[in-house]
Amino acid sequence: MAVRWTFTIVAILMTSLPLHGVAGKWTPEQLLEHDPAWLKELGLELSAEELWDLEKGGLLEAIIKIGGCSAGLLSEDGLVITNHHCIFGILQEHSTPERDLIASGFLAAGREDELPGTGTRATVPYSFTDVTAEVAGAVPEDADDLERYRAIDRKTKELVAECEQREFRRCHVAAYDDGVQYQLVEALEFPDVRLVYAPPRTVGEFGGEVDNWMWPRHSGDFALVRVYAGGENQPVAHAADNQPYRPRRHLRISPEGARPGSFVLVAGYPGITYRSLVAAEMGERAERFFPGRAHLYREWLDVMEAAGERDEEARILLADRVKSLANREKNARGQVAGIERGRLLAKKHESEREVLAWAAEQENHGATVAAYEELGKLVEEQSATWDRDFLLENVGGGPMALDLALRITRWAMEQAKPDLERHLDYQDRHREKQLDGHRRDQKRLHPDTEATLLVDYLGRLAALSDGQRLPAVTALLDDARDAEQIGPFVDHLFTGSSILDLDARLAMFDESVDELRKRDDPMIDFAFELNAEILAIEERAHRFDGAVSRLRPVWRRAVRAYLDRPLDPDANRTLRVSLAHVEGYRPRDGILMEPRTKLAGIVEKHTGEDPFDAPAPVLAAAAGAPESRWADADLGDVPVCFLATGDTTGGSSGSPVLDARGRLVGVNFDRVWENVANDFGYNPEIARNVSADVRYLLWMLEAIEMPGSKALLEELGVGIPEE
Amino acid sequence: MAVRWTFTIVAILMTSLPLHGVAGKWTPEQLLEHDPAWLKELGLELSAEELWDLEKGGLLEAIIKIGGCSAGLLSEDGLVITNHHCIFGILQEHSTPERDLIASGFLAAGREDELPGTGTRATVPYSFTDVTAEVAGAVPEDADDLERYRAIDRKTKELVAECEQREFRRCHVAAYDDGVQYQLVEALEFPDVRLVYAPPRTVGEFGGEVDNWMWPRHSGDFALVRVYAGGENQPVAHAADNQPYRPRRHLRISPEGARPGSFVLVAGYPGITYRSLVAAEMGERAERFFPGRAHLYREWLDVMEAAGERDEEARILLADRVKSLANREKNARGQVAGIERGRLLAKKHESEREVLAWAAEQENHGATVAAYEELGKLVEEQSATWDRDFLLENVGGGPMALDLALRITRWAMEQAKPDLERHLDYQDRHREKQLDGHRRDQKRLHPDTEATLLVDYLGRLAALSDGQRLPAVTALLDDARDAEQIGPFVDHLFTGSSILDLDARLAMFDESVDELRKRDDPMIDFAFELNAEILAIEERAHRFDGAVSRLRPVWRRAVRAYLDRPLDPDANRTLRVSLAHVEGYRPRDGILMEPRTKLAGIVEKHTGEDPFDAPAPVLAAAAGAPESRWADADLGDVPVCFLATGDTTGGSSGSPVLDARGRLVGVNFDRVWENVANDFGYNPEIARNVSADVRYLLWMLEAIEMPGSKALLEELGVGIPEE
Repeated sequence: MAVRWTFTIVAILMTSLPLHGVAGKWTPEQLLEHDPAWLKELGLELSAEELWDLEKGGLLEAIIKIGGCSAGLLSEDGLVITNHHCIFGILQEHSTPERDLIASGFLAAGREDELPGTGTRATVPYSFTDVTAEVAGAVPEDADDLERYRAIDRKTKELVAECEQREFRRCHVAAYDDGVQYQLVEALEFPDVRLVYAPPRTVGEFGGEVDNWMWPRHSGDFALVRVYAGGENQPVAHAADNQPYRPRRHLRISPEGARPGSFVLVAGYPGITYRSLVAAEMGERAERFFPGRAHLYREWLDVMEAAGERDEEARILLADRVKSLANREKNARGQVAGIERGRLLAKKHESEREVLAWAAEQENHGATVAAYEELGKLVEEQSATWDRDFLLENVGGGPMALDLALRITRWAMEQAKPDLERHLDYQDRHREKQLDGHRRDQKRLHPDTEATLLVDYLGRLAALSDGQRLPAVTALLDDARDAEQIGPFVDHLFTGSSILDLDARLAMFDESVDELRKRDDPMIDFAFELNAEILAIEERAHRFDGAVSRLRPVWRRAVRAYLDRPLDPDANRTLRVSLAHVEGYRPRDGILMEPRTKLAGIVEKHTGEDPFDAPAPVLAAAAGAPESRWADADLGDVPVCFLATGDTTGGSSGSPVLDARGRLVGVNFDRVWENVANDFGYNPEIARNVSADVRYLLWMLEAIEMPGSKALLEELGVGIPEE
Repeated sequence: MAVRWTFTIVAILMTSLPLHGVAGKWTPEQLLEHDPAWLKELGLELSAEELWDLEKGGLLEAIIKIGGCSAGLLSEDGLVITNHHCIFGILQEHSTPERDLIASGFLAAGREDELPGTGTRATVPYSFTDVTAEVAGAVPEDADDLERYRAIDRKTKELVAECEQREFRRCHVAAYDDGVQYQLVEALEFPDVRLVYAPPRTVGEFGGEVDNWMWPRHSGDFALVRVYAGGENQPVAHAADNQPYRPRRHLRISPEGARPGSFVLVAGYPGITYRSLVAAEMGERAERFFPGRAHLYREWLDVMEAAGERDEEARILLADRVKSLANREKNARGQVAGIERGRLLAKKHESEREVLAWAAEQENHGATVAAYEELGKLVEEQSATWDRDFLLENVGGGPMALDLALRITRWAMEQAKPDLERHLDYQDRHREKQLDGHRRDQKRLHPDTEATLLVDYLGRLAALSDGQRLPAVTALLDDARDAEQIGPFVDHLFTGSSILDLDARLAMFDESVDELRKRDDPMIDFAFELNAEILAIEERAHRFDGAVSRLRPVWRRAVRAYLDRPLDPDANRTLRVSLAHVEGYRPRDGILMEPRTKLAGIVEKHTGEDPFDAPAPVLAAAAGAPESRWADADLGDVPVCFLATGDTTGGSSGSPVLDARGRLVGVNFDRVWENVANDFGYNPEIARNVSADVRYLLWMLEAIEMPGSKALLEELGVGIPEE
């Protein structure tokens, strides 16, 4: 009763205690370089060798990739955990307006019901070999920067080609900090990956774009897939009689979960970071690239979202692109805001001055100052054609019809060259990937919207200054500038073209340049003209890359020597490990973010309207959650998400989060907004990654029983005890 | 440097500990009823008698009112602390586009520079007498509800008139829970109040509407005024030779401030709460009144804000009304959201069922069930004319020209009656207050906007259903419905009227009905027609009030008996004390609001743009704040605001917040958003009031030195020590 005398004992005491926030996306090898006492002090109970041994491998072998995401092997039958948003394409592929798996979620009742994902590949690490000496040795002594680039490019392709002679291998050469080290990465790439479990979108994306990059978070951003192999446990194309892949290692689940303050290890394949950039390069990212990307993507999102609102079919077709673009748009804004807020540019200048002053006095680092200054000059040189290069770089984000035509024509153009001289993406070894891309994109395009996006894109190309304007664009559009003028040209490109037809495109795929030309397909013809110019532009970029491969290693070796400690290289999609702790943070004065959320928070946020529309069975079962075996004693509820001080970035999505004993406690899926600029520098006060607690997944499978859930829990090693 | 190896020790541990959240806006007498051991346990180090003694008075005598706000006497020379937003009208009165005191803030260099505030009155409590028996005795045994109302009304007026025979007294009869108790409140009302200190608006309102009702908060919502008296220390009108009022008691400042977990006491004059309402009445508030108010005020705000954007003069003239309306609009939204979120209606039903079941079995509370049911029926009866009554009730929020005319004509109409039969606001004793209102409102009106608001208001009256439509409105507008049709009628009302002219209005003020009628002022004539109907409507309201005065006490006495504990009556603008603790809260899963903010948070929020545009001297001085004597050791900075579990409402603005020893540690100015529906029920988990820390005020005076600040610090008892 409202008037009732209240003397309830409810309150909160807040204190601050020092814990740990450790910068570093360490390579597995670097784990072995660390002082074991320090690792122990952080909380790791395994030895570094149990995680990774150059001879015998280790637990980190269970850390794999699913598409562009990280993932973890969870059973001896090839079961894999990753994020819901990483397998969204499979849900989309199998969804129709009548059977909307995106909305309903999916659980395979038996293995025969698992859903194959076209183009979804599982990449399992096999071995890593240092090839720095070989790559360096391939560069002629008197090479200029273009020759240098070409020599390195050729050498890495040779190494890859040689590596892929070995059965079932997929290989690539990873450059660390643009050449401080080159490493030949061997992996097994499995093309038969099938969806086992995905929660409804309203669970996997609970909070949607409103909560994306935010805390507190309540998304069940997890999913399970299974990797299938051929009769000899080897990678093969999808086939009905394939068998579950039997991995050498897999992770075990910790039923105890992660607790505030406890040690966790985030293992995955972080994409790209920018910490090794010098201030001038960082300035270009902060002041041009990210603001430009945020702006461009926002406008394309507006186009696609408007289409989705008009037309339900368009909404489904474009959903995946909208989601991905929105995510990158918000990321770009966060980078800009975070760099400004953290005064990262000023701090970078400051710390660089220290290294430069030190290096100037060292005998071994005499070239440092000159290398640093030359990097700055390269940035300046690039700025003359920055706008044009930026648009060409981003063609994949918007006008898909043109992007498809560019890919088709480029494939034909590259086919005319010897394999080793081709652009990496157009070598024979990527044939299947290219084809998969065409198949997958067919389910992601919406003709009317593609026309609108192309009008927009050509308008931007047309508006470039004289020095940057592409002759192919002038030839196509003449003086047309605005949408009204450009519209008829785009109509013409589409009317005579079969680029949006999958069968036609697949037929084009192996045609030669001449054969394609004979089709008189205006979109194809325009793509040829554009590609010819892009190739010329690429040569300048190669010269630039050659220079960077010469300069950056000089600079980074000086930084490493100045610090006199291990220095983690920038993320480059290779396997990395971050050493972290479960921990909250203060986003601003007066607010403390707690490190964990719980089911009650979903009920609290639930409004019944997107994106806060939790499924009725989840809401119904939430009431009993405190009694579930997956409830956390301290929380008095099933945990949903948790924060840790993990050093993550894009590509870390799906990274398994392991406890001190190497057992799975969660799956990483995001960073907090304040931490987006982490790509440029780690700030222990706000560096927080967001993970879904594995107990939320287990509770979902157990509390909302469906055919198949019992077997799945058993496979995960947490079968329901007999009563 | 961004790449520097980071192993910084920074982190946060969060725990929860039970503390206290105590519902109750206790009357001073109720403090004496409480178990002293319980008060001590809460943390109070004074005895209840030191705070309040029926014979000797006590420290609470220092708790006064400034206008509609609470305030506290701080020196033997009548210095008073209250909120910046409570003295905003004085700043506005003395501001011109050339000398914008609102923007610059104000500090009187000497007493002769202090700024008188027209219409700002200080009300100092003098004595409180229980008159329940006398009021009850005045009601004839066979009175119907209208007669009952009139008997009570007459009796209270007689009591007031008799009381005001005593020199310098201002009196009123306060009804507690509609008649459980009647109390004759005697006070001294000082009309000479002068502004001593107000910070710049960018300090006093830092965060503005964005932060209003929010936490974390960084507003320096404090100001100092001085009360002036005549030669015998008595209330007199403003005069140059008045002397500072010498109070019997004043508060001392605690230089130690408030710390998390420490006991505080919030003392002031909370306005209106609704906890004694039964569910049916609460439903009317939750489902009609607050949603209706939020909607109506939002539309009027839009009109006034648009005018302010077009015209700087309009912006200044309307600032005070915009601020007040925006505040009430946000409050109304918060009430709706809070009642829904807390499921307060359902809980009220539940608890009422308990009381009803219990009462049905008691001999002494036989009338309870019937009284409860009759209250519900009264609500139902009111709903037939709810829309009309709501619009008439809210005339003061929007169409000021009509409101002024209604006040002028009503004054004349009431003057024709004997004083004791008049509406309370129109008795002779309120003559000065009415005149002050006209003078003050002259600085708050903007002719063009008044026309727009009147068109809007008449449109709403015109749109009422047939049963509710007022004949005066039909007579004026005929069939006009929309703004375009109503515009010419409003033009006519204004063209022939001198209602917006202050001199004319003051001249009208003592004219009789006939004299006013002879003016042929169309706005005045319309107001007469409207007032005639309002008077008839009021009679029905009086009958309703009579019934409530009969029923509510029956119900509340049963609740009190059922609980068998002291029961604090609903707030009714009388002096109340809340027993609280400094404490943070969890607004939702995963977020912990810390109980204090600091200067660094202002620097952090500062964007340079309204409402986050801290003055340059504050930003400059903030860097040295950690070394200031006003810095808090735990915070390492000067504290700005703090949260406590105080049970407050509107009117609690300006309430002094005292520590366990009765020393001033802050001044209350807001509640958190989640706690707005507190008016309907106290929830210890989210019941948090927001106060400015007195050390922020002291730091402002000391760190940003201005002529007069040194003397002021000395008067506050914290003079700067000689070096």
